[in-house]
Amino acid sequence: MPQFNTVGIIAKQGDPEKVVGTLLHLVTYLRSRRLHVRLDAESAHLLGAEVGAAVPVAQLGAGCDLVIVVGGDGTLLHAARMMAAYGVPLVGINLGRLGFLVDVSPQDIESALDPILAGEYQSDRRAMLSVRVIAEDGLERSYSALNDVVIHKWNTARMIELEMDINGVFVSAQRSDGLIIATPTGSTAYALSGGGPLVDPALDALLLVPICPHDLSNRPLVVPGDRRIEVRVRGLDQGHVQVTCDGQADLQLPPRATIEVVRHPHFAHLLHPRGHDHYQILRAKLGWGGHMPPLVT
Amino acid sequence: MPQFNTVGIIAKQGDPEKVVGTLLHLVTYLRSRRLHVRLDAESAHLLGAEVGAAVPVAQLGAGCDLVIVVGGDGTLLHAARMMAAYGVPLVGINLGRLGFLVDVSPQDIESALDPILAGEYQSDRRAMLSVRVIAEDGLERSYSALNDVVIHKWNTARMIELEMDINGVFVSAQRSDGLIIATPTGSTAYALSGGGPLVDPALDALLLVPICPHDLSNRPLVVPGDRRIEVRVRGLDQGHVQVTCDGQADLQLPPRATIEVVRHPHFAHLLHPRGHDHYQILRAKLGWGGHMPPLVT
Amino acid sequence: MPQFNTVGIIAKQGDPEKVVGTLLHLVTYLRSRRLHVRLDAESAHLLGAEVGAAVPVAQLGAGCDLVIVVGGDGTLLHAARMMAAYGVPLVGINLGRLGFLVDVSPQDIESALDPILAGEYQSDRRAMLSVRVIAEDGLERSYSALNDVVIHKWNTARMIELEMDINGVFVSAQRSDGLIIATPTGSTAYALSGGGPLVDPALDALLLVPICPHDLSNRPLVVPGDRRIEVRVRGLDQGHVQVTCDGQADLQLPPRATIEVVRHPHFAHLLHPRGHDHYQILRAKLGWGGHMPPLVT
Amino acid sequence: MPQFNTVGIIAKQGDPEKVVGTLLHLVTYLRSRRLHVRLDAESAHLLGAEVGAAVPVAQLGAGCDLVIVVGGDGTLLHAARMMAAYGVPLVGINLGRLGFLVDVSPQDIESALDPILAGEYQSDRRAMLSVRVIAEDGLERSYSALNDVVIHKWNTARMIELEMDINGVFVSAQRSDGLIIATPTGSTAYALSGGGPLVDPALDALLLVPICPHDLSNRPLVVPGDRRIEVRVRGLDQGHVQVTCDGQADLQLPPRATIEVVRHPHFAHLLHPRGHDHYQILRAKLGWGGHMPPLVT
Repeated sequence: MPQFNTVGIIAKQGDPEKVVGTLLHLVTYLRSRRLHVRLDAESAHLLGAEVGAAVPVAQLGAGCDLVIVVGGDGTLLHAARMMAAYGVPLVGINLGRLGFLVDVSPQDIESALDPILAGEYQSDRRAMLSVRVIAEDGLERSYSALNDVVIHKWNTARMIELEMDINGVFVSAQRSDGLIIATPTGSTAYALSGGGPLVDPALDALLLVPICPHDLSNRPLVVPGDRRIEVRVRGLDQGHVQVTCDGQADLQLPPRATIEVVRHPHFAHLLHPRGHDHYQILRAKLGWGGHMPPLVT
Repeated sequence: MPQFNTVGIIAKQGDPEKVVGTLLHLVTYLRSRRLHVRLDAESAHLLGAEVGAAVPVAQLGAGCDLVIVVGGDGTLLHAARMMAAYGVPLVGINLGRLGFLVDVSPQDIESALDPILAGEYQSDRRAMLSVRVIAEDGLERSYSALNDVVIHKWNTARMIELEMDINGVFVSAQRSDGLIIATPTGSTAYALSGGGPLVDPALDALLLVPICPHDLSNRPLVVPGDRRIEVRVRGLDQGHVQVTCDGQADLQLPPRATIEVVRHPHFAHLLHPRGHDHYQILRAKLGWGGHMPPLVT
Repeated sequence: MPQFNTVGIIAKQGDPEKVVGTLLHLVTYLRSRRLHVRLDAESAHLLGAEVGAAVPVAQLGAGCDLVIVVGGDGTLLHAARMMAAYGVPLVGINLGRLGFLVDVSPQDIESALDPILAGEYQSDRRAMLSVRVIAEDGLERSYSALNDVVIHKWNTARMIELEMDINGVFVSAQRSDGLIIATPTGSTAYALSGGGPLVDPALDALLLVPICPHDLSNRPLVVPGDRRIEVRVRGLDQGHVQVTCDGQADLQLPPRATIEVVRHPHFAHLLHPRGHDHYQILRAKLGWGGHMPPLVT
Repeated sequence: MPQFNTVGIIAKQGDPEKVVGTLLHLVTYLRSRRLHVRLDAESAHLLGAEVGAAVPVAQLGAGCDLVIVVGGDGTLLHAARMMAAYGVPLVGINLGRLGFLVDVSPQDIESALDPILAGEYQSDRRAMLSVRVIAEDGLERSYSALNDVVIHKWNTARMIELEMDINGVFVSAQRSDGLIIATPTGSTAYALSGGGPLVDPALDALLLVPICPHDLSNRPLVVPGDRRIEVRVRGLDQGHVQVTCDGQADLQLPPRATIEVVRHPHFAHLLHPRGHDHYQILRAKLGWGGHMPPLVT
């Protein structure tokens, strides 16, 4: 008995030449396995009307047992945020270059997806973040992130001053270009460029990385995943700060707003082929174990 | 009804002038509170025979309800390893300079210890490490650490090559001056100098920091606290590696040995005065929040 | 015979309460030494009409033997750029907090300035930068900097892609938040927050520091001071890059522009009291030599 | 008229299988060009008696117009120190892996060496270091280095305390694992692992990199090449410090010794094929410009 009946597809936007061949291959494959296929707007557009009409993302989430993402890590980040509330698992097909999250190659569609569709997979639940921007008058906007919430200077060349509380207790004030609040998943993304450590995805933790801090002792900080992080912008910099989620979605910051970040109530649910190994991907992506010749031979 | 009846004292070695005054003050105070006092060898030596004979450390552990450490963080690291198996809580009195772990000032002995002795304290359990060095023939030596287990080059100016598994799965090979495996407590010690992040003591995690790695992508790594870390030294460097615990105790490394590090079954148990705040200590010790003037004024 | 006859004054803007007392003190002192005093707009405004009318900055440069800056490092950066073409030396009076550049305290005005005015001083020539932004159609805009020219992302949360040539030879392509091109003087400013080294002001060198580079092997680079640095922004990021000099002045970047940075033909000329010691200031500002307690005591 | 008549050969030690084929190829080639060939002990040993007897290194220096090094960067470092006083230029043939210094591949012997022997080459003079260890009683030992002089802890797991003067003026005291004093050439070696910047070989500068400094504000420092660096070990660590040159030669440190490092009076003189590009080698060795996939695709 098949585990999955209806499979949604979400495709990378803005790169039709690269995507369309893999999309066609995938849809043909899924139908050959007698599965119902539902397309998001981009994949429906790329495949044309004869293949099927686009389904709004909310219906993809509610009506599918599985969503397959065709693109890169960025496409999967976006899909994961959309699907989290529905608990639909995701598989990522990368377009020619291994991603941290999308690990099935287009040429392996049959050999990698057959076992997954038969229930033979590695389940990988990744913590997400929930960010609320609370204005002085109490109005809120909220958003979610799988990699990171970045509070960064905007429209200014000067550093900004931030204050941070953890669970209501003051931790630090800093002058910097901003602050990255990342999940373990996000520790291989922008946080790594900012000097943060790698964090194992199985660790229930939040990673806080100051961006170019003025004070050299302002080091990255790792705290338990159930902590509530509150950040306030100090006086003069109010108009020059923005909040960005996964490098994709921006939240405006009203004056004297508080930014609150907690672990998201839902997890992103990824499925990998059996034998998936996070550290093997790290070695491949970071060039560990040999790409640099010895210092002295 | 008092919570503590018998109080052990462990004093810093090698610094008699600084220690003896505080020791006398402490013993006089404890006796005024009608408590039994037991002295370790150093404090007995410093106070002279009339005050009391020295008690072997094992008897301190078995026979005391509380141990007070007079010294610095180093003295407390040592005492914590000794007392962990007995579950005896520790209070640290620093000798004039705030420590990360010893946070009672000598002039506050009465005001800080009175509430603690009355049961008014903050309990702070810190994870420790257990390291086993397993020789080729199966012979083992083991040791414990509160800050860190450091695997480092010894008697050589050249880098060493290490391989690391986590829970039996290969993670990385590296050329470096060594590897620091630290608890969250140790994240403010040598691991910080090696470029590691700060880790909240409440997080159940191990911190792995390569020392001067040849490959720039060999970044610090944070993993769940229940992981088993295995490190092997590659071929030629066998005779040039040593294992050091808390910067204090060294373990020789037989050829082709495996070094295995796991979370220790016991915790170090510290008592702090009410109001103790880990991040306040971080701010004071690291000079956060203002010791550096602005870039541009 | 006095070395200096006419002394200009440039005051920090936007902080009248802090500045006005020191300004009054300074002007009274200079007149008591029978010197002609010329005021910039800010100091004239703060002191009121009876003291003297404001002199445009160009006339300050052309008509003064010495300019005294009252403010912080930022005020001096600004003044140095203005005065460089005139070769007028500068003395900096800080407002209560030691700067890297402004090293005379307000309470030392008499004791520090008397010897300087008598020709007893330490001369300190600091290299500056000249930046040209060259549009596709050949139109240019140029500017100068004493600390740094920063090419940074603007109005975007995404990294930008830059290519860099040195003396016409391709050196590197990088994805990052930007690139800092700094003088040795600027090595203690933003470049330090970006992970750059300290550079001795006497070294004829340019410092190139990538900001949060995506590739961990993209390290800071130090090159001879006579090199011509050319930076181009890759395709898509054209509208999202800005050039900022000393954190103060911004240059818009037309599409497909080239940014060229060379050592400025003029030097900033600072005068310090005898005994001035650059490394003493570094120690004081960076907290070297003792502000951190030992790891283990 | 040939520029070079007598060519010396210095071969990597301890790796006969890799070296011997290239050596034979090289000697055959040189003799076909009617050049006198002189062998160091290792190459004479590898090639056997029939080819020629070994010549002591001093005679190689005095009697050759050119020395060809067969090995890796380490072999060239060693040869460069030996040849510096004689002013003999060096060419490096790498054994299969590009080095920072040895840039001719074995398969390119004819095509790369023919032009060089005809006088068509790029000359590359690299600054070296001279280190003197001066004991309390005035006795001295001295040595030279092309990459770096490293003052590092030895036979201890604890940090050491060092004081540094530059040209007789106190600069800093630090607690660390040691101090790397590097040439620009050495900036790609151990200094890079210690967090130092890359320094262009044409810059006349010394690079000072603290190893795992206790104080986070103890950053790498770049100073003019004509500076005299003096380092003293503080009291208790006297027996636990060693000085190592190029990772190869060690100098014992008598108690209360002073370590003095200056630019060496001679330069290492390398010859490269025309078209040699230092930054191309940097890109290849450090993986710049593309080996890491984008963060998000």
